[in-house]
Amino acid sequence: MDPSAAVIREFGQPPRLEAFDLPPLWPGGVLVRIAAAGVCGSDVHMWRGRDPRIRLPLVLGHEGVGVVEAADGASDIFGRRLEAGDAIIWDRGITCGRCYFCAVARRPALCPNRQVYGITRQGCYATHLALDAATRVITSPAGIEPAAVVAAACAGATVAHAMEYCSIGPGDTVVVQGPGPTGIFAVAFARAAGASQVIVIGTERSRARLRMCEEFGADATLTVDGSTAEQRLALVRERSNGLGAGVVFDCTGRPSSLAEGLALAAPGGTYLMVGIATPVGEAAIRPYEEVARKNLRVQGVWVSDTSHLYRAVELVASGRFPFERMVTHRFGLAEAGAALEAVENREAVKAVLLP
Amino acid sequence: MDPSAAVIREFGQPPRLEAFDLPPLWPGGVLVRIAAAGVCGSDVHMWRGRDPRIRLPLVLGHEGVGVVEAADGASDIFGRRLEAGDAIIWDRGITCGRCYFCAVARRPALCPNRQVYGITRQGCYATHLALDAATRVITSPAGIEPAAVVAAACAGATVAHAMEYCSIGPGDTVVVQGPGPTGIFAVAFARAAGASQVIVIGTERSRARLRMCEEFGADATLTVDGSTAEQRLALVRERSNGLGAGVVFDCTGRPSSLAEGLALAAPGGTYLMVGIATPVGEAAIRPYEEVARKNLRVQGVWVSDTSHLYRAVELVASGRFPFERMVTHRFGLAEAGAALEAVENREAVKAVLLP
Amino acid sequence: MDPSAAVIREFGQPPRLEAFDLPPLWPGGVLVRIAAAGVCGSDVHMWRGRDPRIRLPLVLGHEGVGVVEAADGASDIFGRRLEAGDAIIWDRGITCGRCYFCAVARRPALCPNRQVYGITRQGCYATHLALDAATRVITSPAGIEPAAVVAAACAGATVAHAMEYCSIGPGDTVVVQGPGPTGIFAVAFARAAGASQVIVIGTERSRARLRMCEEFGADATLTVDGSTAEQRLALVRERSNGLGAGVVFDCTGRPSSLAEGLALAAPGGTYLMVGIATPVGEAAIRPYEEVARKNLRVQGVWVSDTSHLYRAVELVASGRFPFERMVTHRFGLAEAGAALEAVENREAVKAVLLP
Amino acid sequence: MDPSAAVIREFGQPPRLEAFDLPPLWPGGVLVRIAAAGVCGSDVHMWRGRDPRIRLPLVLGHEGVGVVEAADGASDIFGRRLEAGDAIIWDRGITCGRCYFCAVARRPALCPNRQVYGITRQGCYATHLALDAATRVITSPAGIEPAAVVAAACAGATVAHAMEYCSIGPGDTVVVQGPGPTGIFAVAFARAAGASQVIVIGTERSRARLRMCEEFGADATLTVDGSTAEQRLALVRERSNGLGAGVVFDCTGRPSSLAEGLALAAPGGTYLMVGIATPVGEAAIRPYEEVARKNLRVQGVWVSDTSHLYRAVELVASGRFPFERMVTHRFGLAEAGAALEAVENREAVKAVLLP
Repeated sequence: MDPSAAVIREFGQPPRLEAFDLPPLWPGGVLVRIAAAGVCGSDVHMWRGRDPRIRLPLVLGHEGVGVVEAADGASDIFGRRLEAGDAIIWDRGITCGRCYFCAVARRPALCPNRQVYGITRQGCYATHLALDAATRVITSPAGIEPAAVVAAACAGATVAHAMEYCSIGPGDTVVVQGPGPTGIFAVAFARAAGASQVIVIGTERSRARLRMCEEFGADATLTVDGSTAEQRLALVRERSNGLGAGVVFDCTGRPSSLAEGLALAAPGGTYLMVGIATPVGEAAIRPYEEVARKNLRVQGVWVSDTSHLYRAVELVASGRFPFERMVTHRFGLAEAGAALEAVENREAVKAVLLP
Repeated sequence: MDPSAAVIREFGQPPRLEAFDLPPLWPGGVLVRIAAAGVCGSDVHMWRGRDPRIRLPLVLGHEGVGVVEAADGASDIFGRRLEAGDAIIWDRGITCGRCYFCAVARRPALCPNRQVYGITRQGCYATHLALDAATRVITSPAGIEPAAVVAAACAGATVAHAMEYCSIGPGDTVVVQGPGPTGIFAVAFARAAGASQVIVIGTERSRARLRMCEEFGADATLTVDGSTAEQRLALVRERSNGLGAGVVFDCTGRPSSLAEGLALAAPGGTYLMVGIATPVGEAAIRPYEEVARKNLRVQGVWVSDTSHLYRAVELVASGRFPFERMVTHRFGLAEAGAALEAVENREAVKAVLLP
Repeated sequence: MDPSAAVIREFGQPPRLEAFDLPPLWPGGVLVRIAAAGVCGSDVHMWRGRDPRIRLPLVLGHEGVGVVEAADGASDIFGRRLEAGDAIIWDRGITCGRCYFCAVARRPALCPNRQVYGITRQGCYATHLALDAATRVITSPAGIEPAAVVAAACAGATVAHAMEYCSIGPGDTVVVQGPGPTGIFAVAFARAAGASQVIVIGTERSRARLRMCEEFGADATLTVDGSTAEQRLALVRERSNGLGAGVVFDCTGRPSSLAEGLALAAPGGTYLMVGIATPVGEAAIRPYEEVARKNLRVQGVWVSDTSHLYRAVELVASGRFPFERMVTHRFGLAEAGAALEAVENREAVKAVLLP
Repeated sequence: MDPSAAVIREFGQPPRLEAFDLPPLWPGGVLVRIAAAGVCGSDVHMWRGRDPRIRLPLVLGHEGVGVVEAADGASDIFGRRLEAGDAIIWDRGITCGRCYFCAVARRPALCPNRQVYGITRQGCYATHLALDAATRVITSPAGIEPAAVVAAACAGATVAHAMEYCSIGPGDTVVVQGPGPTGIFAVAFARAAGASQVIVIGTERSRARLRMCEEFGADATLTVDGSTAEQRLALVRERSNGLGAGVVFDCTGRPSSLAEGLALAAPGGTYLMVGIATPVGEAAIRPYEEVARKNLRVQGVWVSDTSHLYRAVELVASGRFPFERMVTHRFGLAEAGAALEAVENREAVKAVLLP
């Protein structure tokens, strides 16, 4: 198949398939044949023109796995030389390595020079992608369907990043707000870390997603429109010996979940803002009652780096969780518009393009 | 002098000196002759009836240093047997040692059974205080005026607690909001930890306190009514190679400082709510712009434990900072009402009773 | 049954059953009917007179679970008032709460005043045990055989302590040296934390224990007398993308395992001395090659505190691991001598007394 | 002056000045005129042929500061474009940014592809140095003599690295073994972090270095040949309320200091191997008494990364310590052999070449 990509030339219009010429392979670069490209919730925001970073035309797709077609001396993170036919996944962000955030703070996710495939560069809604020599590459775990691992590139890695800021183990109760792909990864990571109780809060409309959370090991699920705030607080307390949740993952992307999330957190607990990827307006908090008196940590989590991607890929590779079932919708490259709509209207838990 | 205490029997009325009978000394207990009792900003709240924990009658005073009059087998934290004449300071909180927060979370400041001298028990606005056997006692550093060390018991210990949640060293820029005793301790702790720049923000009315901060090593001071928010942000950026403050101590006790504090923090930074001791209503935040996108940590800091008291006492004992000058007002026990007023109207930086 | 205990009056002689009078119940104390008492490897050392802390006569047994017979106002860590019939487990150590290690370092395991049931006080090789008011009590998880949870009190808690000093998650390779109860807990904790590979090294004589490790989820087992050091290193490297083990738990209690443990650790890794409970002589290390050049952390782990006990009990309560199968030998109280021998000669994986 | 360098063509022979042609400036590269090059103790090892990494011919010099002569688009860590005349310092290590250690462990000091100026590449014993585009550059603090900051590049950065593994603040006692440049930086970093007591142990022969430590703020100094081990232990205990040293920096580079260092550490303390840069043979430890029973952390510290260099440069820039006085010997480039000898025979505290 000739190289082609699903290009957005006008916000809100379906991306259209266009042929393009492959760039020459630079030293250290890798030419990848895309096997699966994830359709992320933030892709919908970008497509709709709500993300201030975006310039058109754009080929979306920051989540991708693929097969090496050609590599000029590139290696994976373990120093294995890449060869044609290797299945790989890569850090969607390219960072400079020399700025304060890369080299001193060692938080490359905050690098001001960060470039992102599918956001500031051509992405994975395409048959082919040319990876820059600075891209960090991970060999994809054998025996796993590409579509099952693709969400590790963004939702999974971002949750892995959040895991850095909390401590979860046997005896701990975790609340996840928002049962989308990010929330499902939060259930899986909390479970994998040994949490005793994982409780997910969604909506009546997201019942299918809540059932998916249960398949990933959630102990209880509740909906904000099918229960009262008192009932939810009571359940969390009952499951936590009266303490509340040691860790709350807010994966809703909405400011309205903040107040409830802080209320459900135990004294000394951690509230993680994992899902806020675009401006969402304001939220009111009561600093004394909700943060100071409870000695809470409220932690913003911005994107991820290669260490997080690695953890997320390994979580999928562990085989403990049914990530392949999380992918409820599969589309061809020409159907990128339909895929974006399936994510936008929450029909899909996770939608993936198979170019 | 016969045992007497300054007793509050009606909110807002000056405490009145009343004689009382010393309790018998229990095994492990210590009878202390109070040498200095600090008048804390939260004492004013309690006196005015704004702290929901308070029941009358009450002898205020959770900050105290004194001299042992009698001890029945008690030791200090280093196992030194206490004897009459020893100068000591003690953890104002008595915690149970057996609950989840004491024994599992190892955060006794959150112990639900915590008792506090001067809040839930008789305090230090008195000639004498009987310390319970469970009280943790520190031998007061030699050669330091009692009044100079007394604020370590509350403001100092709370800032020491905040220090646990951040990392400060050479190359770091720190902002302190609010130049009261808590803010002054924040300046001293940041300086002692090696911060390259310490910038304090106050008000025109608190000019004297800002000058005190400079005596403690602040590199720059600004006022919210003598400069614009843009000017303050510009100064912080200029002093931090454009990054913003790695750590912000909010010692104002007011929700209105939250928005500016978050704006001044560098990406990846930490915002510490150190000074909120009573309900203060609501504050609005913009979760995306101020927390998520900047990957900030917002950390509530509730009171302190013995480890924090120890750090604060040692900071004073280091002799590097003019803590004795922070005590601008000294009163007799009979003048407790005047002392509370001097704190309430911000005439005093720190007021101390010398019974 | 009248209160009786298995008393050691001479080192190396079988403990003999003796009747004793129950002490009166003090305020806050708990009288427990022992349901199961674990026979720990260190009990053998004490029985043989190799532990310098021991004075005779002694009733061994620092691992115990039991049923409340009477309680005078005591509560568990969650504040639940204890009542007759409650199944409980407790921290074997009683610590002072007021010393530097308890109150400042917040490491009560290092409290110089620490008392231990079965070591410095009467222990659980008895029908009854009177718990001091300072003892931390955890309600035992429902539906679990007492014998299955009893090892959480020592081996499990000590491994939980070790877990504080390392970070284990998806993608990490863990080596466990020594497949006794401590090693089995290390396998379980590493697995529960999400480790990708857990490799256990034992001896040909401990084949049964190695099989038990496999039942707990070990991915590979090796023996020091059935393979060469090169083969073991090769396997660990092969399973870790060439890195070596991120974390090594040394649960052998022998200095001879140190050199191999350091060699198997990855650069930047952590080597945990979990199993050394009595003097074992010297070991030689090569500081440059084994520690400095590899940037290793070598961490001593001394006993445990209530937080560790809680994690270990919750791990058992999770039901993910066959802890009841780890208990290969059950004895009556009168057979304490036989139980000690079964542990000494490594016939038993875990032996338990059922008084 | 024409480009020239002090070249070693035979181990142990004085480096000889040779002219060389400047390489062309690559995109992102920087051509530096060396202002000062530090003579590190490890340079002596390399010169003598004791470092297995070394291939001849070699231009030594991994510590350097200089002035930009030409820059092709390079920026410092804060994104400031470099221009001719800028005073700079740089990370001596160039790391790949894409391997497990760079991108996942975020410990670039362990990068297997690490290149080092003056070790695996041409170094700073030269008039000029061409910096690779991947080099991390820090603008040198204004108003400080180049020779004063040069040791930050290696000794200072390595101590900054060690600081990551310990916690030092008011109330802590620190022991430094070995009063060379690394030990002096350890004194300064401990002091800057707020340590209450800093005690340095040297030899009678290193009396001048011990006096220098006192100028940097050491509270006490002792020598291994002028006191007994019991006296040293007694002093450390006396200065630490009986605890021992919370942190021990071993900056001797000799295995013989290990046993004393472990003995001086407090329970729960940290022993940092900072100064071992070449194979030194074996050392015997007693795992039970010295590590396990004391719950010690023994931490190897291997070289450093840009974050550590940044902290060390900022420490020097703070102006609190007399780093310019640490440089006791200054040599011209042609005298490199004499400089190496002055370091080898410990005549110099710190020797610097001024090309």
